[in-house]
Amino acid sequence: MKLRHLVCACALASMSFAPALNAQTIETERADIELQTVAQGLENPWGLAFLPDGSMLVTERTGTMRKVGADGEVSEPLTGLPEIFVRGQGGLLDVAVDPNYADNGWIYFSYSEPGDGGNSTALARAKLDGKALVELELIFSQQPKVSSNNHFGSRIVFKGDGTLFLTLGDRYSRMDDAQTLDNHHGKVIRINTDGSVPADNPFVDTEGALPEIWSYGHRNMQGATVHPQTGELWSGEHGAQGGDELNIDRAGLNYGWPVVTYGEDYGGGKIGEGFKKEGMETPIYYWLPSLATAGLTFYTGDVFPKWKGDIFVASLRAETLSRLDIEGERVLHEERLLADELGERLRHVVQGPKGYLYLLTDASDGKIIRIAPAD
Amino acid sequence: MKLRHLVCACALASMSFAPALNAQTIETERADIELQTVAQGLENPWGLAFLPDGSMLVTERTGTMRKVGADGEVSEPLTGLPEIFVRGQGGLLDVAVDPNYADNGWIYFSYSEPGDGGNSTALARAKLDGKALVELELIFSQQPKVSSNNHFGSRIVFKGDGTLFLTLGDRYSRMDDAQTLDNHHGKVIRINTDGSVPADNPFVDTEGALPEIWSYGHRNMQGATVHPQTGELWSGEHGAQGGDELNIDRAGLNYGWPVVTYGEDYGGGKIGEGFKKEGMETPIYYWLPSLATAGLTFYTGDVFPKWKGDIFVASLRAETLSRLDIEGERVLHEERLLADELGERLRHVVQGPKGYLYLLTDASDGKIIRIAPAD
Repeated sequence: MKLRHLVCACALASMSFAPALNAQTIETERADIELQTVAQGLENPWGLAFLPDGSMLVTERTGTMRKVGADGEVSEPLTGLPEIFVRGQGGLLDVAVDPNYADNGWIYFSYSEPGDGGNSTALARAKLDGKALVELELIFSQQPKVSSNNHFGSRIVFKGDGTLFLTLGDRYSRMDDAQTLDNHHGKVIRINTDGSVPADNPFVDTEGALPEIWSYGHRNMQGATVHPQTGELWSGEHGAQGGDELNIDRAGLNYGWPVVTYGEDYGGGKIGEGFKKEGMETPIYYWLPSLATAGLTFYTGDVFPKWKGDIFVASLRAETLSRLDIEGERVLHEERLLADELGERLRHVVQGPKGYLYLLTDASDGKIIRIAPAD
Repeated sequence: MKLRHLVCACALASMSFAPALNAQTIETERADIELQTVAQGLENPWGLAFLPDGSMLVTERTGTMRKVGADGEVSEPLTGLPEIFVRGQGGLLDVAVDPNYADNGWIYFSYSEPGDGGNSTALARAKLDGKALVELELIFSQQPKVSSNNHFGSRIVFKGDGTLFLTLGDRYSRMDDAQTLDNHHGKVIRINTDGSVPADNPFVDTEGALPEIWSYGHRNMQGATVHPQTGELWSGEHGAQGGDELNIDRAGLNYGWPVVTYGEDYGGGKIGEGFKKEGMETPIYYWLPSLATAGLTFYTGDVFPKWKGDIFVASLRAETLSRLDIEGERVLHEERLLADELGERLRHVVQGPKGYLYLLTDASDGKIIRIAPAD
């Protein structure tokens, strides 16, 4: 594995930067685009974050984090990660760079943490010293740990007020937990970036409730982002068979899983009580059949002016990048991109500092792909 | 033509009522359905309305109206229609039965009216005496008449307050007229059922504005219905190439055509200034590529309990029946029905008195098709 990456890195370094996958211009509704391979040979890349110098941190679910230069050079695995449970959907997951990175140097990452009782999703932060992660701090650990290989979430999103959101799956075997507040299964949590609990969290004064909880009744959210104008958290949730959801996750609200859902159990069994129930939120939009939605982001750049304000959603099973035209809290239209031209499971979509979009393909030979305007 | 219909009617009369098109059960997201042919041999049927006894009035765009019994028997053409301009998209269009039909016997129909300067869409009413339309009254005539074979609209919708809406196309050759209030091109109008103008219409006090106008900036609306709870008018609008719209048409508002649109001219030319502009309404939802949306209706019946509150939209080019899951003013999800199982251009969808849905296929051998639950 190491050798393969070294070869890849060298091969890339000797090629021109970000070569087009092929000469193809892809015509879409609002932009003609081309796909450029930034890096390849990554093992199931999961999270991607840009550093101020334009280089990237990328996680591999198999338990490694690497730095990828703006020139596409892929580093050796960074050292200093904690012990990670790598199995099923578990492993090293998201990565995020502190909004004040230039001042404090903090890098955050989520991962499947082994421990008493099984495993759960944890959030840690560390600083980067050359190729080593140092000053490691565990700032959150999902409770309780259970024996499960599935539904870890997780995306890390900064709210912009010194706090961050972390999305947490229901662990699959514990779906009913999503409806009770004495655990972190099927929740969005909000914490300060040092791991302490904000005093204005919705359940800090609720007896028996875990104070980190922001919203509940979720299944497995692998996409989350903050709206560029409203500052609210928008998340994409893997539904059961059918019923992937786009939600606006608001403080203290119940998003219904597993009581109300548009999906059914894999294999066909009925789940819950139907589509709607008093006191439970209806999504903004849902996908049926499921695309298996993963990372998502609002587009705010200048490179594709007609995409401004749209949400892009990466999907695994459908192998598409959905563009949602958003007006207020309405989805006016969905365009599904890349199913024919790329045909790869997509784990994540991130907007880079110059306004290009970057995709992670979910494959043992995973790639970072840049979407650029066609010449 | 007459003979063919007689043969069809007799053939149908000797068959069991509403035979299934075939034994196929069609599985959809929320109901297993089957398709039953109620009547056939209709020439481009356009409008359909139920009489209190369960029989139907159906228009043929080629200029005839017929009665179809609850048993499927198709009558000879009714007599007493006015002169109709039958060419291109013009002809006999929608038909509607007065909400107080039991008391007053009024039947309304829209059609392309020839006259000085060309033609335009008109609305008349009459009463049914056996197979004759009698007491004919012309209650509205779109101004001005122009030489055009296209974009006549039109759907007739009762508001529930003694007034009705009529949707009017921009006549294609006069699209810019849609932005000015001195004409009826690209407008929704609201009139009392006797043709007089309601005193609370939005432009009755605006100098130079035609007082029938309810909303403007439309292109060509072949679908319209009133929301069963809010009473507001929802309409479907044929966009240019791309950009069919679903709108809520509110008093006095400008829906943007041809200044803002999601479509482009057929052949690829740019239209207008983009997607949005201050003072012009954004649709609830749009289709790109165009389906060529035609009739639409909210489902309020009990036969398909999981469809309650959904909008169904018939489409011509795409040959689908779209089911839109509506929450408030949001489209949460679209399901496209029947493209594979039927494969016919659909002009209209109407809910019958018992809660079944009825479709009109747009063909020279057009059908009335009933959607029923599969056994």
